[in-house]
Amino acid sequence: MEETWVNSAERIGADLHLELPRTGSRRAALAHALREAVRDGRLAPGLLLPPYRSLAADLGLARNTVAGAYAELVAEGWLTAQQGSGTRVAGRARPRGAARPAGRAPEAGQRPVHNLRQGQPDAATFPRGAWIAATRRAVDRAPNEAFGPGDPRGRPELRQALADYLARARGLRTDPERIVVCSGVAHGLRLLLGGAVLRGPLAVEAYGLPFHRSLLDAAHVRTVPLEVDEQGARTTELHDCRAALLTPAHQFPTGVALHPGRRAAAVDWARSTGGVILEDDYDGEFRYDRRPVGALQGLDPERVGYLGSVSKGLSPALRLGWMVLPEHLVDPVLAAKGEREAWVGVIDQLTLADFIETGAYDRHIRRMRQHYRDRRDRLVATLAEHAPHITVTGLSAGLHAVLRLPDGTEAETLAAAARQGVALDGLAAFRHPSAAGAAAGAAVPPAADGLVIGYATPPEHAYGAALEALCRVLPGAAKADW
Amino acid sequence: MEETWVNSAERIGADLHLELPRTGSRRAALAHALREAVRDGRLAPGLLLPPYRSLAADLGLARNTVAGAYAELVAEGWLTAQQGSGTRVAGRARPRGAARPAGRAPEAGQRPVHNLRQGQPDAATFPRGAWIAATRRAVDRAPNEAFGPGDPRGRPELRQALADYLARARGLRTDPERIVVCSGVAHGLRLLLGGAVLRGPLAVEAYGLPFHRSLLDAAHVRTVPLEVDEQGARTTELHDCRAALLTPAHQFPTGVALHPGRRAAAVDWARSTGGVILEDDYDGEFRYDRRPVGALQGLDPERVGYLGSVSKGLSPALRLGWMVLPEHLVDPVLAAKGEREAWVGVIDQLTLADFIETGAYDRHIRRMRQHYRDRRDRLVATLAEHAPHITVTGLSAGLHAVLRLPDGTEAETLAAAARQGVALDGLAAFRHPSAAGAAAGAAVPPAADGLVIGYATPPEHAYGAALEALCRVLPGAAKADW
Repeated sequence: MEETWVNSAERIGADLHLELPRTGSRRAALAHALREAVRDGRLAPGLLLPPYRSLAADLGLARNTVAGAYAELVAEGWLTAQQGSGTRVAGRARPRGAARPAGRAPEAGQRPVHNLRQGQPDAATFPRGAWIAATRRAVDRAPNEAFGPGDPRGRPELRQALADYLARARGLRTDPERIVVCSGVAHGLRLLLGGAVLRGPLAVEAYGLPFHRSLLDAAHVRTVPLEVDEQGARTTELHDCRAALLTPAHQFPTGVALHPGRRAAAVDWARSTGGVILEDDYDGEFRYDRRPVGALQGLDPERVGYLGSVSKGLSPALRLGWMVLPEHLVDPVLAAKGEREAWVGVIDQLTLADFIETGAYDRHIRRMRQHYRDRRDRLVATLAEHAPHITVTGLSAGLHAVLRLPDGTEAETLAAAARQGVALDGLAAFRHPSAAGAAAGAAVPPAADGLVIGYATPPEHAYGAALEALCRVLPGAAKADW
Repeated sequence: MEETWVNSAERIGADLHLELPRTGSRRAALAHALREAVRDGRLAPGLLLPPYRSLAADLGLARNTVAGAYAELVAEGWLTAQQGSGTRVAGRARPRGAARPAGRAPEAGQRPVHNLRQGQPDAATFPRGAWIAATRRAVDRAPNEAFGPGDPRGRPELRQALADYLARARGLRTDPERIVVCSGVAHGLRLLLGGAVLRGPLAVEAYGLPFHRSLLDAAHVRTVPLEVDEQGARTTELHDCRAALLTPAHQFPTGVALHPGRRAAAVDWARSTGGVILEDDYDGEFRYDRRPVGALQGLDPERVGYLGSVSKGLSPALRLGWMVLPEHLVDPVLAAKGEREAWVGVIDQLTLADFIETGAYDRHIRRMRQHYRDRRDRLVATLAEHAPHITVTGLSAGLHAVLRLPDGTEAETLAAAARQGVALDGLAAFRHPSAAGAAAGAAVPPAADGLVIGYATPPEHAYGAALEALCRVLPGAAKADW
């Protein structure tokens, strides 16, 4: 079969692409090519085909030949023709591949009914109207060069807006030249690793995100766990390390704020050894009962690199984050990022800049703070009523809490939760594999049993049922209450 | 100085963050803290401060104390106060870091006046209105879960729209399950490398993007150059390779379309050896005089992985691309991407899906095709008039052309261009470092001298001047004409 290619796009508004043999019946060949195109899904159900005349001109065929081929396929059910609305691909024609089951959806029986996994804001709260309004303003106002290749530092509008916002709301000391936009905290860590500015041994908190530890492992950076007690991570024990990854505002996942003495110890260590502190401020804007805890970065911008994102405040689906870097780290990170912005879309960047500058971000955060405070209060009240023997910690901030379980009951509780369709994580999932040794006074002793409850995750209408389901699976809860 | 933290956000709409010592004059301490916050840039020029009453309540101070501190700073020029509009940070107050020169902007004397670098569409043509309209529809219609953690394959709406579009416009055979969204072709290559599905020796075209070769080098994948002649890359010489990266529709940068015999040879090789072909379809939608060249992927979807993006058709600033993968490569690539979408923003994905489905993408591409065809015709006409001794090739498609130069003149021409403020690339920059050996009948002989001209890059008003400047730097051009 000789290849020829047909383009009728200039006339009909949709590119159409057919192969015809050079010999044999023209009508049969065209009908065959169209049939194959529908069968393969190249012509989608509902698509309007070109008028006879156009396709005939493009293919060098007689108009009647095209009309005949169309009629043949209408008769076979591949196409439909209606007076005045042209010839279309039939609605029921399905491409060959379409019947294939969706690849990665969980099995029906395994799909969790209640999602209490930490790490997600309530997806129903995304401020659609305000975001679209900001997009309209930002895109209207953007200079043309914004749609050309991007600066790897990120848009200047966004870096300026972030510098102002982070100074005001989180106590950072910065200017736009030290800010590098990224797609999230994990991307920021990757860039720091790619810039070869993170070397081991690197201290991480004994409890933390396994995902971050995996990134460091994959880059062959050895991590050393710091135990976490009621004053936060023991930054008094950093002596043998060259860098540290901390969550000072709200230790993840235990929820402790780093004590002022520990904050000072971390900065003193970094100054005296030339070490680098990375501050993951993953949910710093959400605090309820206590005064806000400012960023550690404000104590020493030359020793602390700050990482943040919109993933908790707006949505993890935006893929938009930032780093505020000590001056000596800016160039290595930009070198790792490459000559042009390869990751973060410009329209989201411009939109977030407008969203911050117009106060829409502050308004949204304030609304969410109230929303999540209410969620937290419902969690506490429900547990007090139905599982009063369970201690809850990490309540004063963030989007999650830790439920302490009786020793040795975490695994069975997780199994019960899975059977009840409740998705949640046990504390053990966050513990550094080589953290060991019981510490006196530890807020979360090594190998403590517990659950990490993301109370922001379920949609509002499902939250009450999720809490009920949670109480049903807790060890020793009064199950008859429900 | 004892740390305390102040939050007046619930009342005034902007989080404010101050440190006050516990002892001494309250008014002097507050004035000092505010002054430092303005000086450091934590309070930006123009920012509205909280009313006396609110800040006083938050800080546990008398209202007169706050009023006195504000008055002191107004007197010093740090703040401004106007009847009825409250107290604001003064406009001329500049943060300490703001005077630092912008890090990476080119020196004034080095900034090119005319940009004829290949690879960029005309940034002024971005369809702002249509894109915003699509964003509004897409965000309004999106299910809540779209704003939760994303599927690493990409949004189903976008994968369906791409499957339909690519089948219709580029002759692909696919279904949404084989499509993986990425931030661009380079990200796609990184994911294939991360999934360990690209092994060397990997054939690349003797002329190609150095950036792609660097990615492969960094992953320790050995690349082998295939010479390029008037039938495209010599895919008849793939025998010792395990994979090949090709630009079949429009060889980059020479502009040749891969001959049907060479297309068949590539697929035959892949079938008989189990090799993988990667098809970089970087500008397949833009062709002018010739019939469209369908994607190689249509010949064998199980042996050809297809990579595309919106970077040429819409904007490189969107960071939005796609892979259409052989079934056996889908899982390794998804494993490399991770459990959740970490890169591509959901709103751009949903917007592009709408943009394609509503026909806005076809309309835009058609308009751009005409725009760039006009650009190309002006390039050809200008050269015919002012530099008739220069041969132009690669004209029938794409956003760039190759100007052949007399032997040994490329380096001096590039130097002249730099002096004249014309940014462009020589052909040598794209040549594989180990490509060697003159080949009879080569369209671009090894070490051929030439320029790659991106005729889409300049804004419309600057294009004429850019062409004039180009002619002035060409060797042997009649310079007196200008």
